[in-house]
Formats: sequence, C-alpha cells, structure tokens
Amino acid sequence: MAQFISDRRDIDFLLHEMLDAESLSKKHDDFAEFNKKTIDLIVSEARNLAVKEILPTQKEGDEQGCKLENGKVTTPESFKRLYEIFNEGEWLAMTENPEWGGQGMPRTVASAAMEYFNGANYPFMMYPGLTHGAGKLVDEFGTDEQKRIFLKNMYSGKWAGTMLLTEPGAGSDVGALTTTAKKNDDGTYSITGEKIFISGGEHDLTENIIHPVLARIEGAPEGTKGISLFLVPKFRVNEDGSLGEFNDVICTGIEHKMGIHANSTCSLALGSNGNCIGTLLGEENKGMKAMFVMMNEARLLVGYQGFACATASYQYAVNYAKQRVQGKNLMDMMNPDAKAVTIINHPDVRRQLLKMKVFVEGMRSILYYVNYCADMAVIGETEEERAKYQGLVEVLTPIAKGYVTDRAFEVCSQGMQVYGGYGFIEEYPMAQLLRDCRITLIYEGTNGIQAMDLLGRKLGMNKGKPVMDLFGEMQKTLAAAKEIEELSAYTEKIEKAINKLGEVALHMGQTAMSAKVLSAFANAHPFQDATGDVVLAWMLLWRATIAAQKLAKAKKKDQPFYDGLLKSLQFFVECQLPITMGNLIAIKNTSSAAIEIDEASFAG
Amino acid sequence: MAQFISDRRDIDFLLHEMLDAESLSKKHDDFAEFNKKTIDLIVSEARNLAVKEILPTQKEGDEQGCKLENGKVTTPESFKRLYEIFNEGEWLAMTENPEWGGQGMPRTVASAAMEYFNGANYPFMMYPGLTHGAGKLVDEFGTDEQKRIFLKNMYSGKWAGTMLLTEPGAGSDVGALTTTAKKNDDGTYSITGEKIFISGGEHDLTENIIHPVLARIEGAPEGTKGISLFLVPKFRVNEDGSLGEFNDVICTGIEHKMGIHANSTCSLALGSNGNCIGTLLGEENKGMKAMFVMMNEARLLVGYQGFACATASYQYAVNYAKQRVQGKNLMDMMNPDAKAVTIINHPDVRRQLLKMKVFVEGMRSILYYVNYCADMAVIGETEEERAKYQGLVEVLTPIAKGYVTDRAFEVCSQGMQVYGGYGFIEEYPMAQLLRDCRITLIYEGTNGIQAMDLLGRKLGMNKGKPVMDLFGEMQKTLAAAKEIEELSAYTEKIEKAINKLGEVALHMGQTAMSAKVLSAFANAHPFQDATGDVVLAWMLLWRATIAAQKLAKAKKKDQPFYDGLLKSLQFFVECQLPITMGNLIAIKNTSSAAIEIDEASFAG
Repeated sequence: MAQFISDRRDIDFLLHEMLDAESLSKKHDDFAEFNKKTIDLIVSEARNLAVKEILPTQKEGDEQGCKLENGKVTTPESFKRLYEIFNEGEWLAMTENPEWGGQGMPRTVASAAMEYFNGANYPFMMYPGLTHGAGKLVDEFGTDEQKRIFLKNMYSGKWAGTMLLTEPGAGSDVGALTTTAKKNDDGTYSITGEKIFISGGEHDLTENIIHPVLARIEGAPEGTKGISLFLVPKFRVNEDGSLGEFNDVICTGIEHKMGIHANSTCSLALGSNGNCIGTLLGEENKGMKAMFVMMNEARLLVGYQGFACATASYQYAVNYAKQRVQGKNLMDMMNPDAKAVTIINHPDVRRQLLKMKVFVEGMRSILYYVNYCADMAVIGETEEERAKYQGLVEVLTPIAKGYVTDRAFEVCSQGMQVYGGYGFIEEYPMAQLLRDCRITLIYEGTNGIQAMDLLGRKLGMNKGKPVMDLFGEMQKTLAAAKEIEELSAYTEKIEKAINKLGEVALHMGQTAMSAKVLSAFANAHPFQDATGDVVLAWMLLWRATIAAQKLAKAKKKDQPFYDGLLKSLQFFVECQLPITMGNLIAIKNTSSAAIEIDEASFAG
Repeated sequence: MAQFISDRRDIDFLLHEMLDAESLSKKHDDFAEFNKKTIDLIVSEARNLAVKEILPTQKEGDEQGCKLENGKVTTPESFKRLYEIFNEGEWLAMTENPEWGGQGMPRTVASAAMEYFNGANYPFMMYPGLTHGAGKLVDEFGTDEQKRIFLKNMYSGKWAGTMLLTEPGAGSDVGALTTTAKKNDDGTYSITGEKIFISGGEHDLTENIIHPVLARIEGAPEGTKGISLFLVPKFRVNEDGSLGEFNDVICTGIEHKMGIHANSTCSLALGSNGNCIGTLLGEENKGMKAMFVMMNEARLLVGYQGFACATASYQYAVNYAKQRVQGKNLMDMMNPDAKAVTIINHPDVRRQLLKMKVFVEGMRSILYYVNYCADMAVIGETEEERAKYQGLVEVLTPIAKGYVTDRAFEVCSQGMQVYGGYGFIEEYPMAQLLRDCRITLIYEGTNGIQAMDLLGRKLGMNKGKPVMDLFGEMQKTLAAAKEIEELSAYTEKIEKAINKLGEVALHMGQTAMSAKVLSAFANAHPFQDATGDVVLAWMLLWRATIAAQKLAKAKKKDQPFYDGLLKSLQFFVECQLPITMGNLIAIKNTSSAAIEIDEASFAG
C-alpha cells in the first residue's frame, strides 16, 4: 500500500539535484561522513520509521487525546512504545553535537526526516521536538554542570523538555510576564508563577521533564529587559544523576483544543507550595536574548509542522482523486453511454491538485533552503560567507513560518475539498490534517507577528544587507533561467515580480520609518504574503531550470516528474503571479483605512 | 451582556436604507402587512429568540453531538425544548403560504431572522431548515392528498423533513444513483436502496420524519433522465392522519464529523426488509427537475449558514480585541513607562478586523439582495420584471453559495487568528464556528460545482440576459456613486473592475464554447472568485453611496457607523481590488497547465 506522508522523488530532487546536500560533506570535516549514500540511507530510514511506526499512531492519538487526572497527564496508549522506538533510532538530536549524544547531521539532510516524521504524526513529534529545543538551550547557555546533569538525558530522550513562556496576561507580549525568581543562599532560585499553553508540560512518556522557564528575578527591571531564563526540572536531580524530590511543578489543567489532541497543552503552577527550585540558565536578565537565539529554529520547526500537514493532505488528495470514480468526463457530458471517470479527470479537481502541488513543492523548497542556509551559516568558509547565510536565515524565517503556514492551511483546506463530503468525516485523514495545521498559524509568534518581524526588523537588519543578499540569490537563478529558451516567458514575468517586490520593499521600509508607520504595519501581513509568493516563484523557477535541462535526456519514467515541475512553474506564473502582482500594487497603496477607522465603527 | 451573533445596526441599514424592504408591502397585497413597524418587530423577535433560546444550546450541541443506538438517534438534550419553542413561534415556514401554515413573509425580511437563527446555532437550525425545504417540495409538487396529509404537519414542525439524494457511489453525480422504486398495484411504490450523508435523516425531535427520496423506477432510463422523486415517511400515515406502521427506513450509521456535531448525518437503508413504501411526488422521471426548482433556495440557505458563522466570528473577534490587553502601542514601543493596550490598537489586528468587517458587510448585502430579487421574482409587476429578477437569482446563486462560503471560511479563520492561542481552544467560540463553517463549502454542491454552474449554465442562460441585467444593476449604482465627489477615486476603480469582469466573462463564455473548454473550466473557480469580488465591491459602493449622503446630517451616534461603511469601501478598493484585478488577468490567461499535466506528474 502506498504511504501518504510525502513525496520521496521530490525530496531526492531537492537534496541531490537542487541543493546538492552531498557538497556539504566536502565543505566541512564535521559533515564528512554525510555523502550521498549515507544521505539516502538516512532518508530511507526516516521514511521507514515514519510509515511503519509513527503514522499508525496518528489517528489513535487524535481520538484518544490526552487526559489529566490528579495532576498526571496520560498520553495516547501507543505513544509510550513509539517514543522508545524513536529514541532507539537516535533521531531526537540528529543535527546536534555528537559529544552530547547528537548525530551531527547537516540540517539540510535532517529536513527530509523532519518532513516525514511530522507528516506522520506531528502532535507526537512535538514531544521529542520540544525536548530537542530545550536541550539546545542547555547546550548553548548551560554551565558544564547543567550540561552534565541534563543534556545527555535530554538528547537521548530519556528526559523530556518544554518551554515555559506564556502566562495568562503575557502571550505575544512576553515582557508582561509575572513569574518571579528569588535567589537562595546556595545560588539556586525559588520560582513562583503560573504558566499556560505549555505544550508537553506534563505527560507520562518520561520519568522527568526539564522546563526552561522565563521569569523575573526580584527587583529586576520591568519588560523584556528584566527577564531571566531558568532550568526547572519536574523532579530535582541529585549529584549522581538520580531523581530527587518532586519540584512543585503542578499541572493544573489541560486544554481541549481543535487539533493536536495528542499533545498535552498544560497549565502549570510553579512553586504553589513554595517548593520549586530552578537554576539560572545563562546570565541574569538575559533570558530574552537566549530565547531569540532559539527562535529562528523553533519558528522553522513550526513551518515544517504546517507544511507536513499540507504535503500529507496533497498526497492523500492525489491518491483519492486517482481512485474515486464520479461523474462523466466534461467532454462526454452529452453522451448517454459515457462511463463515469476518476475525479482527477475533472478540470476543477485537476486545478485544485495542481495548485496544491505547486505550493507544496514551493514550500518544501523554501524550508529545505533555509536549513541549507543554516548549515552554511555554520560551515561557510569565511566569516563573510557565514554571516551572509545567517542573514538569509534571518530574513527568510518569517517566510518559512508565517507565509508557509498560511499557505499550508489553504492547501489542507483544498485537500479536504477534493475529498468532497468524505473530507469532513473524521474517519478520513483530511479533517485531522486541517485541524492540526491550524495552530501553526498561531503559536511560536502569530503570523501577524512574523509579518511585523519581517517588516520591522528583518528588512532593515544590517542596513538591509540580508535582503540585498536574498535578491542577489534570486538574480543568480534568473541568470541561469535566461539561458533556457523555453522558460523565457516565465523567467521574464518572475523577473518583473522580483523587481516589483524590490520596489515595494524599499517603499515599505521607508514608510515604516515615516509618519505613516502605523499604515505600513497595517500592511505588514500582505507584504509577508507577497514576499513569500515571490520567494516561492523563485524556488519554482530554480526547480524548473534544473528540470528543463534534465528532461531532454531523462528516462521515460522520470519524464512526468520533470515535466510536472515545468507545469508547476507554468501554473504559478499564469494563475498565481498576477494575483501576487495585484497584492504588491495593493501594498504600495499602503491603505490607512485600518488605522483611521474609528474603533466605534467596529460593531461588537 | 452583549450578544455575539450579528449586527443589528447593519441589518437595519440593509432592510431600510439600502433595500427598502417596506416598499415590498406597497407593491403587492400578499406583503401588505409587512410595513416598517412589523419588520422591526420581526427582527427584534428573531433576535430575542436567537439570543435567549438558541445561542445557549450551541456549545452544548457541539459537545454532546448525536448518538446512535439500536437505530435510534439522540440529539443534544437541550434541543427538544428548543425545537418546541422554535415551532411555537411559527418560524419554520416564515416565507411560505399561510394556507398551509406559513407566515407569508417577504424573503428580504426573513433574511434577518435566518441570519440570527443560523448564527446562534446553525447545526440546530438544519432540522427546521430541512423540514422547510422538504415541505416546500410537497407544496410545489404534491397532490392535494399529499399536501393534506403531510404539509401542515411539516410547516408546523410537528413532523420533520429531510432530503435523500446522495448514495455511496453517487455524490456530485446524482445521476449515478441506484435506489429503485417498484410500482405496486395500489399506485404506491416499494423503495429499495441505501442513502448516505443524510442530514437529520434520523433523530428524536419529532414523532415522524418525511423523506423526499430520489430513486429510479424499474425500467427507467439511466442517468438523471430516469430519476423520480418519492415521498417516504419514517412511519406510514393513516387516512385520518394518525401514525401507522414503521416504514422500513433504518438508520444504519451516523458520521463522526469535524463540525456540525449536533446535526445527525445518517446512512439510511430503505426497504432492507422489503417493506418501505413511498408515493410519487410530481411526475415520473422528473425528479431532477423538481430538485432544480429547490436548488437555488437550498444553496442560498447554505450561503446563509456559512455567512452566519462568519458574522458571529467577526462579532466575537471585535469584542475580544476591544477587551484583551496585550502589548504596547506601536508608537510607544521605546517608552518603558507605556502601558499595555487593547489589541484593537495594534495595526495588524485592526487590519484583520476591518477585513472581516468588509467581507461580512459585503456577504450580508449579497445574500439579502438575492432574497430581495427572489421576492421581486414573485411580486414584480410585469412578467418581464419577474423574469429579470428570477434571472438575477439564478446568476447570483453560485456567488451566494460558492463565493460567500469560501469567503466565510476565511473570515472564520481570521477571527480565530484575532483570538491568538485562545482561538484554538474549544472553550472559546472560534473553533466551533470554523469547524461548522467548513462543510458549507462542500455540501449542496461543492464550491467547484457552483463555479461550473456559473460558467457552464448561468453565464449563457437566456442568451446572457441575466448576466447583462446584473451588469445593468451595477451601472445604476455607478451612476449614483458618480454624483458623489468624495467617492470618485473608488467609483472609478470599481467601474474599471466591473468593465474588466465584463471583458473576462465574455472571454470565458467564448472559451467554454471553444476547443479550450477544459481550460476554461479549470479556471471556473477563480472566475467565481473574481465575479464574487466584483459583486461584493458593487455592494460596498452601493452602501457607501447611501452612507456618504447620510453622514453629513447624521446624529453623532450614527456617524461611526456611516463613516465605517466608507472605510470598508476604502479598504476593499485599496487592499483587495488590486488582487481581484490580478485574478482577472490570471483568468484571462486561461492557463491550460492543469489540463495538460500528465496524471503521472501528480505524486501519490
């Protein structure tokens, strides 16, 4: 039976034909062992694990969800064994330092595993994913002692990790948090406060859970400047690594959510019995700085989560449309003897599938490319090269999170539509994918906040160098595409769009510094949309440039794939790009209507 | 406490300032009693019922859902009493013939009640809604005997009604159905078959359920030409109106759906014990014709369902954004003493709310206008006038269903986004509204089928007269708007969009008749989108024309409302219309990519 998580052919195209992931192994000793053969093995192993072990738990996880009883959270039954299997494979810290139990894998390569795992059951994947993120905080900011006690047990998956930011009055505005830390004589801190929306804040998968906690040391400044980061375990850890007493981290509730039922979303009371002890992670009052270091990676992960739902939805939709027989071919409507055909033959269904295909391919390219840039930001030969790629990561992060999840949700909705009435029935996979996907537009900074990040921080960062570098990379693809005659009509239109985006970006950057700043920010989200569209168009052109060259000499079995990439480009340029150009015109209008409208004009 | 279903001020604007609903009472004796005072009373009563009785059952209905045990379906506990109250108010057949228990109300006026009721709990409203639709079939096509036995009991709500079309192999393609009818000696028919996705197919709200059933008489032609309509009660009805024996209509399953949990979606086995008797409704083999007569109204109802979710979502979002304090004002970001503000002050939130406002106002206008046209199609003075309005109903129905529900779902998603993390929690109303809304894009003909209807049937209907009439109505608004200096920038742009739509409609009509027919239909859905946008722009201009005139002499308390209508127009023209224009350009491209792509290019 076919597996419906992702498209191995397209993953291979990205890794080998587009990004040349193997080249990383030649560029830096750390990646030396990741040659093509190893990469292919990793992808196959990840795919196997995803299909055979993770995917079968997806629906059960959704149906059983999590339960809270007497402060204990129970996860779906199948998760315990799956969590063990996942950790036996040492996948949790695949890109991290081998010294602490990581696999030292290039992030470019890990992209494929992330796609398969998240597509198979992303609510499950949040447990190891959050553990990885928490571990990375210890890795980056922990003392040797903190690493020794916590890190190996986290990267191995023996203990889980989370991230405690949000409070009832402090969501998007982290600086408003009220959790306090009081320094004790032994250098530890007593923590008191209430946190909400904590993914995996309490569960039964591991014997201990390590919580990085944002809190304010008594007397510290208000706002983000007075926030410090602490490491707070659920059970204290003795010198010898054994578990000590309960650390007064109490789960007071779990949320009943529209999706990701299998991941517990917890309210946690810290120190409600005066007995919660944490150690400082990093420096006092530098907690936000530490968070920012982690943010790009966390946001990129959310992009993967949303995208994974979309790619799975696309796979299911294609398969369904190839099997489901319904209605005559449009050309045979008047022929009483005509037989019903598979719905992939109906023009509107084909349009929907092609639209899904185009966006899935584009989103996959964006995400893998950002991970490729993250690799190059570490292994680049010169300081300048590394800085350039780090800049590309920065400027593309709001696209990889904000734009990608916006589009991913649209793809999931389109996939449901292809299923017709069956799409709405929970027996089929489309409803869960849509429901699960929806939170990715919200958490880790809403997509509106991503758009503000793009306009307010990333556009002008380092005097605009990252943005200029991005345009520089696009120009390279344009130059290559111009060599290919058959792409000329598309290349020309994409060049126009890139130039228009440059013009609008300049305008938006200037407007954001002018008296019309509020109007600029009221147009930040559409600007993120348009930027994402143009970046996606660039990716599609890049892909088509390779496909056009390969098509001529391709084996017969490969021809539909390469030809399909050309069709993707054609569809985007003919059907989507004019809409993007319209949006760019709209953004240039920089409407002040939303700013000037009287609050009383909104009925409520 | 405020009620969050709809916006009374805007409803009053539509009924009295824009459509002049009272004028209907002067145009036809049947509507004579529906003067302004009566209209206002009806709206107030509907609002009261919705707020006080229906809304409190919405969440409970979602949580309890429906249960099937031994062939019996249990609806949420609160529904029994609510169903009684609803029927005591005689709302079920408010627009129908008083002779059979209807209220004879203009549909324009009923629009407001439909909006309130569906916004308060549309899964509940499906029970009376379907009963109304089934009753109307009896009303239109039934014999005197059928009307006497069934109709009064249906319009009073004593018995419920449904509609049995879909079968496992016959969804969008109704003509493929296999349910059979065998004529008995007494003129009745023995029915045998299996139907699925039957909303309200079985429940515990009424002592009897009357099923109009599409089936094929033995020996009838294949396809839609051989389909007849039958009336099949759950319990047979004796001559004196008392209930007879069980009619072998067995509920074999109910669906577990993503939304509308409170409405049972049933699989029904007809005559599995050889004991299901129906009577012919209308003529043999004319079942599809009867269905088509009902289709416009059913599709318009679905438009209301989706819209009602959207307007409720907008109301909640506005209220939340006015209360929720989070983050500093953008202008005070650097001021450490600045206090957090309500999120309606943040530019991106304001943009989201204004976008929701614009689409909600536009959708409301479209739906009420179609109902106004439906009234005029009945009471118009001349045959020509009635035909004109009937044509407008025909051409606008795919917009009112397909376009409106597409946009409504986007509005619901936007509303969830305004709530941030709370939007995803089922404790708050946004998740249910989003989930419930989603099915409206699918049932009663998917939105892709609506788009095919627009392009393939409505565009060329009566040699294009309805479409020309639509453009004629738009021209009237343009002429009025041109009189108002302050609207000139907007009027000019909307005129351009209307002209462009005319050009594209002509192109699409021609292409659909050419060898490129498949490419035309692959662009049918974008064409429906663009047509809807332009119709909505027309509505906003119409509204703004009135608002601009009234604003000068408006009382202070009315100023924000009228000014808000001008801001809606400004936002749409500046932010959305350029995108619509881009879409029109894309449609003119009439991409063949989706048609030409090899099926093998779709991975799966």
